[in-house]
Amino acid sequence: MKKKIIVIGGSAAGPKIAARARRMDEFTDITIFQKANDLSMASCGYPYYVGGFFDDRNKLICTPTGVIRDPGFYWNAKAIVVKNNTEVTRIVRGEKLVEFKNNLTGETGTAEYDKLVIATGASANMPPVKGIELNGVTTLQSMQDADYLRKIRDEGKIKKAVVIGGGLIGIETLEALHLAGIDITLIELLPQLLTFLDWDMAKLIENYLKTKTNVITKNGVGEFIGEKGHITGIKLENGDELPCELAVVAIGVRPNVSLAKEAGIEIGPLGGIKVNEFMQTSDPDIYAAGDCCEIRNLVTGKNVLAPYGDLANLEGRAAGENVIIGNRASFPGTIQTGICKLFDYSVGITGLSETKAKENGFDFERAVNASMDKPGFMDGKLLITKLIAEKSNGRILGAQCLGPGDVSKQIAIWATAIKGGLTVDDMINGDLPYAPPFSLAIDHSIACAHILQNKTRGFFQGISALELKEKINRGDDMFLIDTRGPDEYEETRLGIGEHLIPLGLLRKRLNELPEDKDKEIITFCKISLRGYEAAVMLKAFGFNNVKVLEGGIAAWLFVKEK
Amino acid sequence: MKKKIIVIGGSAAGPKIAARARRMDEFTDITIFQKANDLSMASCGYPYYVGGFFDDRNKLICTPTGVIRDPGFYWNAKAIVVKNNTEVTRIVRGEKLVEFKNNLTGETGTAEYDKLVIATGASANMPPVKGIELNGVTTLQSMQDADYLRKIRDEGKIKKAVVIGGGLIGIETLEALHLAGIDITLIELLPQLLTFLDWDMAKLIENYLKTKTNVITKNGVGEFIGEKGHITGIKLENGDELPCELAVVAIGVRPNVSLAKEAGIEIGPLGGIKVNEFMQTSDPDIYAAGDCCEIRNLVTGKNVLAPYGDLANLEGRAAGENVIIGNRASFPGTIQTGICKLFDYSVGITGLSETKAKENGFDFERAVNASMDKPGFMDGKLLITKLIAEKSNGRILGAQCLGPGDVSKQIAIWATAIKGGLTVDDMINGDLPYAPPFSLAIDHSIACAHILQNKTRGFFQGISALELKEKINRGDDMFLIDTRGPDEYEETRLGIGEHLIPLGLLRKRLNELPEDKDKEIITFCKISLRGYEAAVMLKAFGFNNVKVLEGGIAAWLFVKEK
Repeated sequence: MKKKIIVIGGSAAGPKIAARARRMDEFTDITIFQKANDLSMASCGYPYYVGGFFDDRNKLICTPTGVIRDPGFYWNAKAIVVKNNTEVTRIVRGEKLVEFKNNLTGETGTAEYDKLVIATGASANMPPVKGIELNGVTTLQSMQDADYLRKIRDEGKIKKAVVIGGGLIGIETLEALHLAGIDITLIELLPQLLTFLDWDMAKLIENYLKTKTNVITKNGVGEFIGEKGHITGIKLENGDELPCELAVVAIGVRPNVSLAKEAGIEIGPLGGIKVNEFMQTSDPDIYAAGDCCEIRNLVTGKNVLAPYGDLANLEGRAAGENVIIGNRASFPGTIQTGICKLFDYSVGITGLSETKAKENGFDFERAVNASMDKPGFMDGKLLITKLIAEKSNGRILGAQCLGPGDVSKQIAIWATAIKGGLTVDDMINGDLPYAPPFSLAIDHSIACAHILQNKTRGFFQGISALELKEKINRGDDMFLIDTRGPDEYEETRLGIGEHLIPLGLLRKRLNELPEDKDKEIITFCKISLRGYEAAVMLKAFGFNNVKVLEGGIAAWLFVKEK
Repeated sequence: MKKKIIVIGGSAAGPKIAARARRMDEFTDITIFQKANDLSMASCGYPYYVGGFFDDRNKLICTPTGVIRDPGFYWNAKAIVVKNNTEVTRIVRGEKLVEFKNNLTGETGTAEYDKLVIATGASANMPPVKGIELNGVTTLQSMQDADYLRKIRDEGKIKKAVVIGGGLIGIETLEALHLAGIDITLIELLPQLLTFLDWDMAKLIENYLKTKTNVITKNGVGEFIGEKGHITGIKLENGDELPCELAVVAIGVRPNVSLAKEAGIEIGPLGGIKVNEFMQTSDPDIYAAGDCCEIRNLVTGKNVLAPYGDLANLEGRAAGENVIIGNRASFPGTIQTGICKLFDYSVGITGLSETKAKENGFDFERAVNASMDKPGFMDGKLLITKLIAEKSNGRILGAQCLGPGDVSKQIAIWATAIKGGLTVDDMINGDLPYAPPFSLAIDHSIACAHILQNKTRGFFQGISALELKEKINRGDDMFLIDTRGPDEYEETRLGIGEHLIPLGLLRKRLNELPEDKDKEIITFCKISLRGYEAAVMLKAFGFNNVKVLEGGIAAWLFVKEK
């Protein structure tokens, strides 16, 4: 008798599982149960459809050559049965079958499996507040949501909207609706956006976003206010009211595990299905993949929820292989790489933030690099990277990068380095593709490694913008030197009591510096390269307590005088 | 007495050496001797200046904030003495001094050193043919060359030019002159352009370039023809004549080692100065860095000449440190990463080509991936990658990538992987930054690893376009299946005797296939993903000799029927 594979879920992981399983064996019966009508949706593309980056909705559900990935396509091209609009209502492990129900016809039935794969995904969290049921309160999680918001864009009637939640989807939605000509306010309950970043990196993003839209942090939604069943505004937790005709909720997702739970499959402490590296659950005949699972963070060794489309595909590839030929393909885990476009900026992270590294007890060194991605003459754009590495062995632990420059390449480099266990020393002489249209002669990433090595070896001491600001607020006695030229100083400056002494004059003007060689001196420039050179020089002249403002003025996240 | 460092050469490596040395010690005397007037030129930017990507010549020799890097700048900002227009004429090792001559004033002198660094760069090769001295025969190696060619662009008088040499500089020059409105012919002596690539990858580039300019391979210049001292044409080795008013010679460079050689410093078998990993020559007080050195290829362990600006900087950083604090900083070698923009395409390589891997006796597996860099709905563009890895352990040996897509990121990923000694299995579950504006859910690079793993594990057999073409030419009896749809077939097709059987119909039309299950079957589609699925399926149905045309129609480098 033919072997039977059942896959529950037809979004990202599900179709990948089924397709990989088919390639492993032409003669197994493979069935996907998909609750929704559509399947294999490019759900990460929803914000770009809503934002008008493209107009043809089918592009979200078709192959590169334009064939819609519907049940007919799956049957013809891959001999995979797709039962869409069909919900699995129960997993009966004892009998190795699932019970299902067609949501259109009401028809029910059962189907037997030899191996079952759960790819039920995740659902949007909703705040438990009044008015959540009003028309105009939505998420951006499904094709229907995308259709709804795209219609709003096309009609052009709505003028004011709020986005609740400053995570990846919230910010992508914010851009989409802003591009639709809607006046947006972003509301985030926590003190920072994009909580996977460090506060200071997130603050730079917040500052940038505020040039485009309104951003409110440390405030949640208390109530959705409505008239005749439609939203007219929201009341914030602090009592403020914001009029709006649309509210998009994007406060994270939770794994869909009720089917698994009811069947007695083990659920992890974070609420996701527990799987081993072969994506096998506590029942050896049942696998799971995608947003419904907990997976391992490879840097900390701890389990995490990592609901990303790329991981869903990789997990699905492993599960799809293993259900056919046994546990051969492993998915060891994630380093939680992520990236987000926001208008003309991008921001990304891979590995650990400083915050996470501290939480996990790592002893690490930090470097901040603010520099161009390409030469100025090739229209180079700014990147700000924070790199952290373990002190004892130099192993790279994490990188965050943001700016108008090519963030994607930087994060891809660091993700590969972290995945491979590379150290700062490995990256010092990185041999990356250099030509002026693509990179500086010393690529931004290699320069990060140089800075981190210089710091680790004690060639200079650094101070972050946040640390300096705290010192200023405390009224610490310091001598601050801006080492730029007068023209640059006229154009923009911090205005925190700094002395303007251009690097080229510093050797001649040492007499202007404090007599007390132990006094704290902070040097900086636009990106703190000249600031670094100044610090090294001053150290040579006997100043014992010189620090470089990391990332210079480019990474200053507080208000500037000018 | 103060320690004295002398650096010979002020282009890329020289200034880096001096700057790094200064940061290591404020109180050492550091002098750069530079033969030319300009120094610290962004020489890799010359083609983009000539091509009009920017107009301000000073951008090639100024800091990111616009300060010209002249002797005054070096003295003020870095306390480095630069003697420009001054040529070192002799190294007297016994007395630890150099003899120099000012090329403007004729003045001569000597200067003592404690440590000397040779960064004399490389010079352009010139063909030993008649007419080489004619006006209008030039290179693009110096600021003067750049000025000369930029003037030609600005004057707009010259209509026809030839570029001799299809390497990186030749192709960059070709683009620059084409953008200047000049009708160009590229002439390459060897059977392929960009000889660091495999022939088939280079052929794809040649095919693309031919849509923009004329390209002649397997033909060299026999003579430059002139009238009244100015070039009017060239005669090729096969006797053909091409009229032209300008000829740019770009047939490679050779290290400038005469000073070193005359001083009895050891020269390597490739003609470059021999250095250890600390960039130290056979004389322990003399270091060298940049294009004048031989360095180690980290994949083969053999020495190479690698005249790249990024490596010059990294070598200079190591040498600059070591001359001050002793041999601490190492530059272990190169994986010979390179990249080149050519109109709307880019092409890059890191590690070994197939050709080089064979030459060096590696037993390797190959994968070709033709796919988009981003989703179609985000304006994704094609990339074609050839990845090779060692058979025994999966260690990645090399990657070549080309196309209109984001080649730079792909090569950066592979360069980091090769530098780190990563294997195909490490890359299978790569955790790269994914969001639709940046990548497919399974990034192109990860898909390369998947293909290579599938092939290594015997899930399919591949055949390259070149291998297939050879079979066709030999008249081999094969059954070729194009698995695309009829619309796609109407639009473009190979026309090599293939049968059109769309993947979705293949299971139903197995009866059209050869009865002899051992007959060779080749499957393909646009990019050979459907071709791969077809091959896997046919294998399951008992066809024993099925191969996938690697890279599909996208990587077909021969003439197509349509």
